[in-house]
Amino acid sequence: MSTRLTAAALALALFGTTTLAQSTGDLGLVVERADGSLLVVDQSDRASVGRITGLGDLSHASLVYSPDQRFAYVFGRDGGLTKVDILEQKVVNRVLQAGNAIGGAISDDGRYIAVSNYEPGGVRIFDADTLAPVADIPTDSKTVGLVDIPGTRFVFSLWDAGETWIADLSGAEPEITKITGIGTNPYDALVTSDGRTYITGLFGEDHLTAIDLWQDTPEPTAILDGYSAGREGLPVYKMPHLEGWALAGHEFVLPAVGQHEVLWVDARSLTQTGRTETYGQPIFAMARPDGRQVWVNFAHPLNDTIQVIDSVTKEVIHQFSPGPGVLHMEFTPRGREIWLSVRDADKIMVYDTQSFEKLREIDASSPSGIFFTSRAHKMGL
Amino acid sequence: MSTRLTAAALALALFGTTTLAQSTGDLGLVVERADGSLLVVDQSDRASVGRITGLGDLSHASLVYSPDQRFAYVFGRDGGLTKVDILEQKVVNRVLQAGNAIGGAISDDGRYIAVSNYEPGGVRIFDADTLAPVADIPTDSKTVGLVDIPGTRFVFSLWDAGETWIADLSGAEPEITKITGIGTNPYDALVTSDGRTYITGLFGEDHLTAIDLWQDTPEPTAILDGYSAGREGLPVYKMPHLEGWALAGHEFVLPAVGQHEVLWVDARSLTQTGRTETYGQPIFAMARPDGRQVWVNFAHPLNDTIQVIDSVTKEVIHQFSPGPGVLHMEFTPRGREIWLSVRDADKIMVYDTQSFEKLREIDASSPSGIFFTSRAHKMGL
Repeated sequence: MSTRLTAAALALALFGTTTLAQSTGDLGLVVERADGSLLVVDQSDRASVGRITGLGDLSHASLVYSPDQRFAYVFGRDGGLTKVDILEQKVVNRVLQAGNAIGGAISDDGRYIAVSNYEPGGVRIFDADTLAPVADIPTDSKTVGLVDIPGTRFVFSLWDAGETWIADLSGAEPEITKITGIGTNPYDALVTSDGRTYITGLFGEDHLTAIDLWQDTPEPTAILDGYSAGREGLPVYKMPHLEGWALAGHEFVLPAVGQHEVLWVDARSLTQTGRTETYGQPIFAMARPDGRQVWVNFAHPLNDTIQVIDSVTKEVIHQFSPGPGVLHMEFTPRGREIWLSVRDADKIMVYDTQSFEKLREIDASSPSGIFFTSRAHKMGL
Repeated sequence: MSTRLTAAALALALFGTTTLAQSTGDLGLVVERADGSLLVVDQSDRASVGRITGLGDLSHASLVYSPDQRFAYVFGRDGGLTKVDILEQKVVNRVLQAGNAIGGAISDDGRYIAVSNYEPGGVRIFDADTLAPVADIPTDSKTVGLVDIPGTRFVFSLWDAGETWIADLSGAEPEITKITGIGTNPYDALVTSDGRTYITGLFGEDHLTAIDLWQDTPEPTAILDGYSAGREGLPVYKMPHLEGWALAGHEFVLPAVGQHEVLWVDARSLTQTGRTETYGQPIFAMARPDGRQVWVNFAHPLNDTIQVIDSVTKEVIHQFSPGPGVLHMEFTPRGREIWLSVRDADKIMVYDTQSFEKLREIDASSPSGIFFTSRAHKMGL
């Protein structure tokens, strides 16, 4: 270790960089929201290896990676778009691109970063190298559910207008396709991992809306009628994240709104096939990459607990309490481990998904989102 | 460029390494079989960035990556198992582990490398760090179709015995589960990308065999009866690779044996749903990562041509002739580009999958297999 540090110091003096040989396939970033910082973590060593500071307001922050897994683009709630270098462990660029933002995406060719904004509403497109503005797509509405799909395209929805827009950035000017009548007040959306089906959650309806993006003229279809009908049943401490939809075998698993259960939905017909009673109101239902297990965390005040569901029997096979405030979960790419952010314990906890054994605790300051670099190679995140 | 070379030379003198900051997410290796070398390529730059020599006989060679995407394990037909460092661009270890080998895999925890051997028949397990032998699983048969599945397990089949074995390496000694009666002379196999369904090609039967590995007692099931019945119809210049099965939408696409067509198979029921006539006998039918397109190459003497099939209409939408001897295809992780090995032109050719435009030619010596580092994060390769 001391040899490596000396070499790093020498390299800094000679080349203006401390970075020597370092592969990036097993790295990750953990959002430390209270401090506006990112913890750099190494999956193989199960350790933190650095910290990047000065990212502003990171509440509800998310990020995406460049195709080479060297850079991350961090979307802050304050409208900040920050580019960080995980090899050099520093901020390389930062722009305040709006007053209030909610997530972003990177185009399939790695050239463009899109950011979804509440205030002023719309989507802004930036050059991934320089963060220079490339295009502005005003919407007169808060925009939600921004995702990338193949062909230098982005899809997003308009809270106020009940529309979904497809923005094609492959030409000189953005080409917009508008899909109207998707329902009242879309609040979030996701796209399936093949980039084909865009599913929107609606605050003012009792169903969800699905759009098959492979059709020449994509049309909205109502699915899961009555899905939100039970919303009055229990207080909704936190809206479940649509991004928590997980493909387990032939079914999606999704957190039910306002209920202590997850729903199973046939991935092809998008009809409900079952339900599993859970310990609390689920926030994320995350499938292990092979789909055999689904890990579920819960809304406050039951957010100290995790349940693991087997996707063949649909039964809870394991339950444990990592600690107070389990906010996020991320699987290692082939699913052998899961990393949990336990905010109020100031820890990341690492578990083996086969034995359920705890493998490591890593110090972190109020950790929330965990993002491994393997996300660079996935669509629709 | 000159600055970088100078820095690299300085780094070599000071640290014994030429490697400075280099992310590994967009790198890859191309097998140069005639020279026993590997070309190191950079997807973002669309360029070769180095060459690693001294790997022995690389005919039918394949490779897998370590979870951090720094190391590759190369399986040579001569029984050589070679570990290369793609950052340092050199061989770091090499063992001759058998007389005649056919592929390998890496366990889901990254700890073990398994190699499938013809002579002597069986599977050998090595430590991924040191290549020290860990376990020997003799089979009294040629072994084929070796894949990794979750839980430090490997699955493979026995040509002579018509059996599929599951080897569990999670404990102190390998635990073997034998599935008998899978059919006569399995010659290759694959596992679906979720690690659930293991499908075996049989040289002596007119069907394939599927095994659901999620069942407590996995049983073989005959699928696609009559699949090989037409084998006499045309000379089989080259057996199609089962690894060429691609998931496109809700269907698998597979090269038909001895016919000028690909077959479409429902991914859930594993029954045939359609066929598409092709230019020649397909070798690989590869789905773009989003599944919307299937790219097909062909057996000699029609191996100068590529056809692209749309997976909604199942029709050929594009055909072109990159050059003589198109041996292999690899998509960039989110599918925007495809890289082709054109052996007899001594070129790798890079195409945009949206516009079909050729983006670059890269010199390579008789290139065959192309392997991008994103494979590190996938199961069952």
